[in-house]
Amino acid sequence: MVYEPAPPHLTLLARNPKKSYDFSMYPLSSRMENAKPSFVREILKVANRKDIISFAGGLPDPSLFDLEGIKEATQTALSKAPQAALQYGPTDGYIGFKEQVAKVMQTRDVPSLNLEQMLITTGSQQGIDLISKIMLDPNDVVLVERPAYLAAVQVFELYQANLMGIEQDANGIQIEDVERAILECKKAGKRPKFLYTVSTFGNPSGSTLTLDRRQALLEIAVREQLLIVEDDPYSELRFAGENIPPLYALTKDVAGSSEYVVYMSTLSKFVAPGLRLGWMLVPSGLMQPLTIVKQAADLHSSSFAQYVAAAYLETGRLEAQLPKIRAKYGEKGQAMIRALEQTIPKGILEFNAPSGGMFLWVKMAEGVDTMQLSSKAIEQNVIFVPGVGFFPDTKRTNYLRLSFATPSIEQIEEGVKRFARAVLD
Amino acid sequence: MVYEPAPPHLTLLARNPKKSYDFSMYPLSSRMENAKPSFVREILKVANRKDIISFAGGLPDPSLFDLEGIKEATQTALSKAPQAALQYGPTDGYIGFKEQVAKVMQTRDVPSLNLEQMLITTGSQQGIDLISKIMLDPNDVVLVERPAYLAAVQVFELYQANLMGIEQDANGIQIEDVERAILECKKAGKRPKFLYTVSTFGNPSGSTLTLDRRQALLEIAVREQLLIVEDDPYSELRFAGENIPPLYALTKDVAGSSEYVVYMSTLSKFVAPGLRLGWMLVPSGLMQPLTIVKQAADLHSSSFAQYVAAAYLETGRLEAQLPKIRAKYGEKGQAMIRALEQTIPKGILEFNAPSGGMFLWVKMAEGVDTMQLSSKAIEQNVIFVPGVGFFPDTKRTNYLRLSFATPSIEQIEEGVKRFARAVLD
Repeated sequence: MVYEPAPPHLTLLARNPKKSYDFSMYPLSSRMENAKPSFVREILKVANRKDIISFAGGLPDPSLFDLEGIKEATQTALSKAPQAALQYGPTDGYIGFKEQVAKVMQTRDVPSLNLEQMLITTGSQQGIDLISKIMLDPNDVVLVERPAYLAAVQVFELYQANLMGIEQDANGIQIEDVERAILECKKAGKRPKFLYTVSTFGNPSGSTLTLDRRQALLEIAVREQLLIVEDDPYSELRFAGENIPPLYALTKDVAGSSEYVVYMSTLSKFVAPGLRLGWMLVPSGLMQPLTIVKQAADLHSSSFAQYVAAAYLETGRLEAQLPKIRAKYGEKGQAMIRALEQTIPKGILEFNAPSGGMFLWVKMAEGVDTMQLSSKAIEQNVIFVPGVGFFPDTKRTNYLRLSFATPSIEQIEEGVKRFARAVLD
Repeated sequence: MVYEPAPPHLTLLARNPKKSYDFSMYPLSSRMENAKPSFVREILKVANRKDIISFAGGLPDPSLFDLEGIKEATQTALSKAPQAALQYGPTDGYIGFKEQVAKVMQTRDVPSLNLEQMLITTGSQQGIDLISKIMLDPNDVVLVERPAYLAAVQVFELYQANLMGIEQDANGIQIEDVERAILECKKAGKRPKFLYTVSTFGNPSGSTLTLDRRQALLEIAVREQLLIVEDDPYSELRFAGENIPPLYALTKDVAGSSEYVVYMSTLSKFVAPGLRLGWMLVPSGLMQPLTIVKQAADLHSSSFAQYVAAAYLETGRLEAQLPKIRAKYGEKGQAMIRALEQTIPKGILEFNAPSGGMFLWVKMAEGVDTMQLSSKAIEQNVIFVPGVGFFPDTKRTNYLRLSFATPSIEQIEEGVKRFARAVLD
């Protein structure tokens, strides 16, 4: 995003999205009429200023990268199969990496899986794009969480979908609201193409769908032939409470439901985002269309990265690394909550303490505009993401997202002081 | 592409593409109605059989990968900036890699360029997808070469474009045919969204657009506001004749034309395809829309691969590697031509000796069906790509593509003997 000199993100947000470009010179496609740069990434530009403390990004703490292990894995990959690691590979991914992903999935209650129903992607972001490409025509309905992951919303909007929000609480999306949305669609003669959910440690909500709701959702999926796209980037980052199996793992308990869950995950949050490696686990009927659009998109994801990642996962070092990662994010999350409680009087902010992930989702009083608060915060040299962008189908101005993943504990404490000054100003 | 047990590629080709999937279970998007697996990649499955000699793929000769150099670069990248190499990065690419790409472009008659108009992609395949995404609505016209690069055709068809072929000869696309196509579009009330060309050592044609035609094409671009998408993966692989600057470099000579050329290239053919790194050089007005769709597609290409590639290009080892690469492909191309001339009587095949690249484009007598020939060739344990797939808007059955890049010279000689048996059968 170096195209233009970093604009203050507020300017960008204030822009009329319909006028993002000059269409007079180039006859762009109609999907670009509403396209705008992700405002999170625009805020991240400000984040590069040395004096800024950022609660905005979802970047993993780089001190948690297992550098030694990855260096070693790189050597192994380039010694064992150098030519294959540097050559073109199969569209659906390198089998050796797939096998390692299957082992990761064992720790997520998926004891075995069919590697022919796994597609390796360039991060799970690409999974969102590919499933949209095979499913969405303009005006198709996609059900999303309220609030929803911003970069997914961006993709769905590029496919000119109609987004319909499902209310969410600390226990994830509300099942009765899923029913309500489906009914509304039926009345309009529509069938939702899929429901997209970050089921565990949601972004931005931090909330996790309960086991009961998971089962209920799978039953709805079967009954309504509703495809569920489960995005699961954060489940390795649990620092409190008990694991809850992903929807994908629970399909074994609900007859027929395995045909209706597409699962996506990534190495980005617990190995390294720079590898840009994710995976999709898909019903057999969707594998061929997905492989076709993947091939058209980039032939396949980096063989080099896949061989290195496979070699890394083979070392078993991750087992020792994960507890460190979880402990660190747990500490940071607690530090942020403690600092907020110490600096801001009760009743001004409302949030649930997350059991994992990277985010604290904060509600303020009705009428508060967190976009305006963001400007004040930037004056105090601290940034966060105003909530408005996470609500594609409603306008809620009084939410904001704080990430505790990237800054150090000292920075969290100092950043919260600055944030408090902006809030209490 | 491991989705289904490798089918004989002929079966796949014979399929009615309208019936590639069962739409009854999943309501796929309309773009999937005509989507089919690339038949080149399907043929490549047969290529994995040990007894097969393959003239089908465009895989670089892996003995030409600079393993030592890449190993060293990997060490450098992980020592110099390990955390950045493993972290999320900017959507448009790592600046250090961009600088190295700019140096590569200097050898292609582009003495300087604006790094803010460069977008790093996951291979140049992704460039084809991204430009299509920002430009194409269903039924938009795209001008392509006759014959055209198959994987580009596949992308354009996924965007539901109407492809219009431009006749090509040994000197590249015929300018008068470009004029004819534009006129035809005008009569139909259409403006072509862009013209896509592999200008140097075309795939599959092997032909290179002459300097005169390049200039004429740029003039048409300005006059007709026709965007030219120049795909240039092969220009480093020249083994005979003089360099011809890419269209992108020639825009400086034709006033206004720089606004109408999008240039794409890749490390795949002269460093390593497994890195999956390509780049686009684009007019300033297209950089923001392209960055937006790139971000939605995969956030950014692998930081890890970009840091390694930058470190590799910095070593300057490529300068010593390129002459080896060119010499080797030159030898192989000559070996193939010699073998064909020795084994197949004059008049049966027609082809132009290419000055670079990886392909020999062969014409047979009218009425010959190279799909049928392909079956016979498989019986002889040799494969090639029948030409029919390269003609999206016409049906020409008497062409085929032979790649000399991957097999050894011994394999080329033996493979041509087998091919001759199929031809002369």
